[in-house]
Amino acid sequence: MIIIDKISKLREIIAECRLSGKKIGLVPTMGYLHNGHLSLVKKAKEYSDFVCVSIFVNPIQFGENEDFAKYPRDLNRDTELLKETGCDLCFTPSVKEMYPNEILTSVSVDKLTDKLCGAYRPGHFTGVCTIVSKLFNIFTPDIAVFGQKDAQQLAVIKKMVEDLNFPIEIIKAPIIREKDGLAMSSRNIYLNEEERKAAVVLHKSLKEAEKLLLKNEKNPSNIINKVIEVLTTEPLCKIQYVSCVHPYTLEDLNEIKDKALIAIACYIGKTRLIDNLLWGEKI
Amino acid sequence: MIIIDKISKLREIIAECRLSGKKIGLVPTMGYLHNGHLSLVKKAKEYSDFVCVSIFVNPIQFGENEDFAKYPRDLNRDTELLKETGCDLCFTPSVKEMYPNEILTSVSVDKLTDKLCGAYRPGHFTGVCTIVSKLFNIFTPDIAVFGQKDAQQLAVIKKMVEDLNFPIEIIKAPIIREKDGLAMSSRNIYLNEEERKAAVVLHKSLKEAEKLLLKNEKNPSNIINKVIEVLTTEPLCKIQYVSCVHPYTLEDLNEIKDKALIAIACYIGKTRLIDNLLWGEKI
Repeated sequence: MIIIDKISKLREIIAECRLSGKKIGLVPTMGYLHNGHLSLVKKAKEYSDFVCVSIFVNPIQFGENEDFAKYPRDLNRDTELLKETGCDLCFTPSVKEMYPNEILTSVSVDKLTDKLCGAYRPGHFTGVCTIVSKLFNIFTPDIAVFGQKDAQQLAVIKKMVEDLNFPIEIIKAPIIREKDGLAMSSRNIYLNEEERKAAVVLHKSLKEAEKLLLKNEKNPSNIINKVIEVLTTEPLCKIQYVSCVHPYTLEDLNEIKDKALIAIACYIGKTRLIDNLLWGEKI
Repeated sequence: MIIIDKISKLREIIAECRLSGKKIGLVPTMGYLHNGHLSLVKKAKEYSDFVCVSIFVNPIQFGENEDFAKYPRDLNRDTELLKETGCDLCFTPSVKEMYPNEILTSVSVDKLTDKLCGAYRPGHFTGVCTIVSKLFNIFTPDIAVFGQKDAQQLAVIKKMVEDLNFPIEIIKAPIIREKDGLAMSSRNIYLNEEERKAAVVLHKSLKEAEKLLLKNEKNPSNIINKVIEVLTTEPLCKIQYVSCVHPYTLEDLNEIKDKALIAIACYIGKTRLIDNLLWGEKI
């Protein structure tokens, strides 16, 4: 596996790959990799010949009071895991390499970013779209893989790719969970033992929602109320939002027809966790 | 010359060019071509093997009270001129082809767009950056040529390319003028006979500025005052702005050192015209 931290050198390697007719896959990450990330790498290997993973904790997608400084980092561990997973190239740029001068350009997606996490994290998705645009222009990949865990991010990136005509296919990969159902996240490390146990309530609430959907429940309010009911049983859990939306437009549903996304964000102690259930759509 | 109006077909042709090792050049235009545009095509031919011109009057870069509907169009004449100039491909998409669905994504450049024309045309440069990003992603050119006539657009696009890591070299081409000095513009057609004569005052004022600069004038106020003095001699001319800025950052200069851009916008009757003088920099 090639490990590289300079854009110019990366472009040379990508150009060589192109010349030899290889299809290039990209998995953008912020590092501190877990099995969720590694599943994206495996997915990328299915769809491309040369799999690249970027590891970059992107300052411009963190709010002022968010966890940029303390976001977990462990580059040695990450690169070992990537080697084992069959990644071909790992790109680990510095902040200076990605933002050598004051960045004045931003890429924004309206409407989709006003809702769900976007409502609570102003500027977050502009930071995400801007760095992803940069990575797309640096790697010029044929495909890029994003996890369903960040369902809003996936919808926003898909819309950005469509609107700006990026010649890139966006592949989505399912949520990977711990044995007890907690969705894998780099932020799970913030949880203490008690909180870790409590955090299972997110998945538990979504399982209850699924039961209702399997019983043909069509009313989003009934789904949302059931999720809230389950989450409220856990004293350590503070709900930020519970929404039932269309998975592409992220608009609130009045009635569940073919597709739905049940998305939740909760604080468990001081740690903000998200999870979701995608209904009526194959991944 | 290939004339084409569908993105998917265009991508096929570009992919073939790539396979045969050709360097691709793009000249984005809004059509109604004049010798200024054709000089960009010639410049693109110097730097690439397959020169593409896009002709698209982009609705999202026009303000509500601006001239989108009446902007001059003559596709037959344009394609004839391009054939004669040795253009290889002309892309003439419909609005529906470029914006098949509601566009929610926008590309913006801060600071640089608050000044000069940007101050009077809110949203204009976001519309420009968004369509240029789309065209860059559709053509994936190696080089793209923009005219010095739209000096602010050039500075904004260069900053966007740098910030978003577009793998594209931006080439600038000098202003092309009529015999009497009027900078060529598709909007010159709006001028009646009397206004057409009056419009020469823009270039005349910049020539006077140049004389001062050649005499080693370092004070931007003296330059600006001289330009205003000359423009004011023409009763049909209403000044919008006269600025002396750095050509890259577009920041007002306190003192003229190595580089300067003297940029003006005036109404001649109801027609808004721009012109500029680039000092201390080769094109």
